[in-house]
Amino acid sequence: MNSGQLFNQIKLKQSFLCIGLDTEMAKLPGLLKEVEFPLFEFNRQIIDSTHDLAIAYKPNMAFYECLGTVGWQQLELTVNHIREHYPDMLIIADAKRGDIGNTSKKYAETFFKLLNCDAVTVAPYMGSDSVLPFLEYPGKWVILLALTSNQGGDDFQFLNTGNHERLFETVLRKSAQWGNSGNMMYVVGATRASMLVKVREIIPDHFLLIPGVGAQDGDLAEVAEYGLNSRCGLIVNSSRAIIYADSTERFAQVAREKALEMQRQMSTILTDRGIV
Amino acid sequence: MNSGQLFNQIKLKQSFLCIGLDTEMAKLPGLLKEVEFPLFEFNRQIIDSTHDLAIAYKPNMAFYECLGTVGWQQLELTVNHIREHYPDMLIIADAKRGDIGNTSKKYAETFFKLLNCDAVTVAPYMGSDSVLPFLEYPGKWVILLALTSNQGGDDFQFLNTGNHERLFETVLRKSAQWGNSGNMMYVVGATRASMLVKVREIIPDHFLLIPGVGAQDGDLAEVAEYGLNSRCGLIVNSSRAIIYADSTERFAQVAREKALEMQRQMSTILTDRGIV
Repeated sequence: MNSGQLFNQIKLKQSFLCIGLDTEMAKLPGLLKEVEFPLFEFNRQIIDSTHDLAIAYKPNMAFYECLGTVGWQQLELTVNHIREHYPDMLIIADAKRGDIGNTSKKYAETFFKLLNCDAVTVAPYMGSDSVLPFLEYPGKWVILLALTSNQGGDDFQFLNTGNHERLFETVLRKSAQWGNSGNMMYVVGATRASMLVKVREIIPDHFLLIPGVGAQDGDLAEVAEYGLNSRCGLIVNSSRAIIYADSTERFAQVAREKALEMQRQMSTILTDRGIV
Repeated sequence: MNSGQLFNQIKLKQSFLCIGLDTEMAKLPGLLKEVEFPLFEFNRQIIDSTHDLAIAYKPNMAFYECLGTVGWQQLELTVNHIREHYPDMLIIADAKRGDIGNTSKKYAETFFKLLNCDAVTVAPYMGSDSVLPFLEYPGKWVILLALTSNQGGDDFQFLNTGNHERLFETVLRKSAQWGNSGNMMYVVGATRASMLVKVREIIPDHFLLIPGVGAQDGDLAEVAEYGLNSRCGLIVNSSRAIIYADSTERFAQVAREKALEMQRQMSTILTDRGIV
């Protein structure tokens, strides 16, 4: 999926919502635990119930890997279900991979050829040759970690690296030269909305994947204020607040209500800014 | 496996060799491609042929993941084979994971509980809470990326982060406080043997996993000179130079010859330094 197609979906759905599929057995409604592929069945119902409100789904690899082959099977079933029924959906493998060149090449094969995802999250520590192999696939995306919203994000990302620049800014500036706004996006933690100003100075045109935004607390408005560009340029992810909003058999319906709440706010923001 | 047990193995085998299992279909001898689990069969023969010369095996996750469930199956078979036949072997999952806390917890489950590996390589960019969940398993190890030998390693790892310190040094200094020399090791690229002096100033006691050392070119002597401590403190990895030394059905025998060459050099070094 190229950036034009992605922007079209955003306009069509008036949404820049990504739903994170951090699906774990312990949190599934009781009934689902009886079926053969419980994670997939949960995902399927969530997806079927929200596909017109979201432009992307983001399965988190760790939650599937921790079940071994059975987990991989359910991840494959999930991706295939989206591909078959909602071909215009962006599928992001949240994998945070990154290794030397020949190993990154294998990871790129895994996520882009074997699983047929559109995008994969990648960690920057090992530098250019850990990222470049992912950029060799036309229509696919690297989403590079820049600024993360977890507590430990402060340990290294805010280190001063000279020239009045912090590590996350150096990561943005250098890595932007490896690809372009048509094949790279960045993870930027939403709890640092004020940092978005800095981010947009360095990469005005790239899409940003923003995790950790809730519907209620005004975060979304702040993220939009500082993060939007003329082609939207934002993908806002919500995982648990949507998929685990209800723990009964009504989970998919309640997930839809939560997603709808987000989508309505996004629609208002996009309209107000004249983007749709 | 705790550090005492690891040091015992090093003394017993007079070796600090790790063999990397970067096993890929395209490089297997023709005959093996006919069997049901070719990667496993290759690994099994390599392991059975070298187990008395190596103290660790390091399967590289990317090479198994890229085959999907069939790859995972063969990874599991490989780990189980080592566990069953060579219970004193250190098994390192080369995965370079790293995510926010609850996701890293799942990755720790995957590699320590499901796969029952002893150690996993972890990327530092997301900081403490991406590493701590791995440290909750007694007898297991985090091997944190510090200095990598790939070309892109220069992009960020050598950035000056103030106080006459570069990023890899800050990573070492800060992260050493998250655990101790009994549950953390570090990846330090061998092409930078002179950097080992710096590394040892900051973490004199930790084990270092050194990739990219060949048997022929004197690297090993240099790495040993600057990296050894009184309890060895080094694990030197070789992957392709051993497992792909021969591409015929004699591969396992030739792998043994290459491993033996390394082990003999290591034995001399350990004896000369009075470590064994």
